[in-house]
Amino acid sequence: MKLYSHRQAPNPFRVTLFLAEKGVKVNTAYVDFMHGELKADEFKAINPFQRLPVLVLEDGTAISESCAICRYIEEMNPLKPLLGQTAKDRALIEMWNRRADLGLLNEVAQVFRHTNPAMAPLEQPQVKEWGEANRPKALATLAIFDAQLASNRFVAGDRYSIADITLFAAINFARVIKLQVPEELGNLRRWYSMMTERPGVQAALQVMKETSSA
Amino acid sequence: MKLYSHRQAPNPFRVTLFLAEKGVKVNTAYVDFMHGELKADEFKAINPFQRLPVLVLEDGTAISESCAICRYIEEMNPLKPLLGQTAKDRALIEMWNRRADLGLLNEVAQVFRHTNPAMAPLEQPQVKEWGEANRPKALATLAIFDAQLASNRFVAGDRYSIADITLFAAINFARVIKLQVPEELGNLRRWYSMMTERPGVQAALQVMKETSSA
Repeated sequence: MKLYSHRQAPNPFRVTLFLAEKGVKVNTAYVDFMHGELKADEFKAINPFQRLPVLVLEDGTAISESCAICRYIEEMNPLKPLLGQTAKDRALIEMWNRRADLGLLNEVAQVFRHTNPAMAPLEQPQVKEWGEANRPKALATLAIFDAQLASNRFVAGDRYSIADITLFAAINFARVIKLQVPEELGNLRRWYSMMTERPGVQAALQVMKETSSA
Repeated sequence: MKLYSHRQAPNPFRVTLFLAEKGVKVNTAYVDFMHGELKADEFKAINPFQRLPVLVLEDGTAISESCAICRYIEEMNPLKPLLGQTAKDRALIEMWNRRADLGLLNEVAQVFRHTNPAMAPLEQPQVKEWGEANRPKALATLAIFDAQLASNRFVAGDRYSIADITLFAAINFARVIKLQVPEELGNLRRWYSMMTERPGVQAALQVMKETSSA
């Protein structure tokens, strides 16, 4: 099994956080994608959508999309479940995970990809107005998460889950667009601070800082 | 249990297709959302993101996000599984479902929401250039699905799954932006034609045409 990933990019980082929380180690190759590496035929053969991360199984099956990779890891390593233990929990975790993902993480990514000249090779055409339109959307989404965290210890309720991981990755990533959680969102700030104290999160942040390609 | 849905909108239609395929009936209220209905406090209390569909359980738990609703329905009704039966299948189905969802369905939705004046109440600001930028992206995504269907009967392999449902909902929805599957994508056209012959799809298309609010 081999994981093609990236140390800083937010979707790969979600898988890094997931693996660190589970305490699962996977042979990983970190792919630099700023010089056309994902457009190479060799990479397109494992992911025609030209995105990281991708998990390649022993039989050659290539699983991309970070949520699909996390689901496979969860099923192979059921201890410390992060996708829920009952039908209702699993549905609520999936709901909040998607809200963090298609909501916040996507909104932050749109600002970054459409307003940063360095992203031009990956995002054509860049539409600056669309990028900027996502900044207030991201702020509105943060406020909804703050409200949820007023009465819940974790994003999807009492237990730590993949929804916390995605929200953490999104807020961490928001530094690239100089977006911080506003002072008045005290629940979210308290949750974020609690997150940074988790050993799994600290281990993942350590991976983010390293520089080797494996 | 009560489902808040819509007969034509693509995400609610995914749940309609899923329920019809499973042969599961749920008490449903169809909500007209073009006149601010989703912004009402009563609706925001069940989904702060102001989107359909939402499934409200007997205990008051509100599950939104169509994929989360489908997962809950699948777990409560495990016959005719549409989310996969092995860890690898479940991961591949999730991967292809997300590609159909965040790829094609989202791209078509961006074109529609940002270029159609009727969508202005729901999409502020409309950024026409961004809407138009998604049309070629949608065509490129269709070509990737065509390639996948060259050697697979269904989107995620040998078996019908939620990935077929999402792709069908996306292509069906693409009529609103006058986007058709190009003639040269013969695998995809053959698959789409096969889909329209499924009893579950025919039943869902029938729901789409009805006009009552329940």
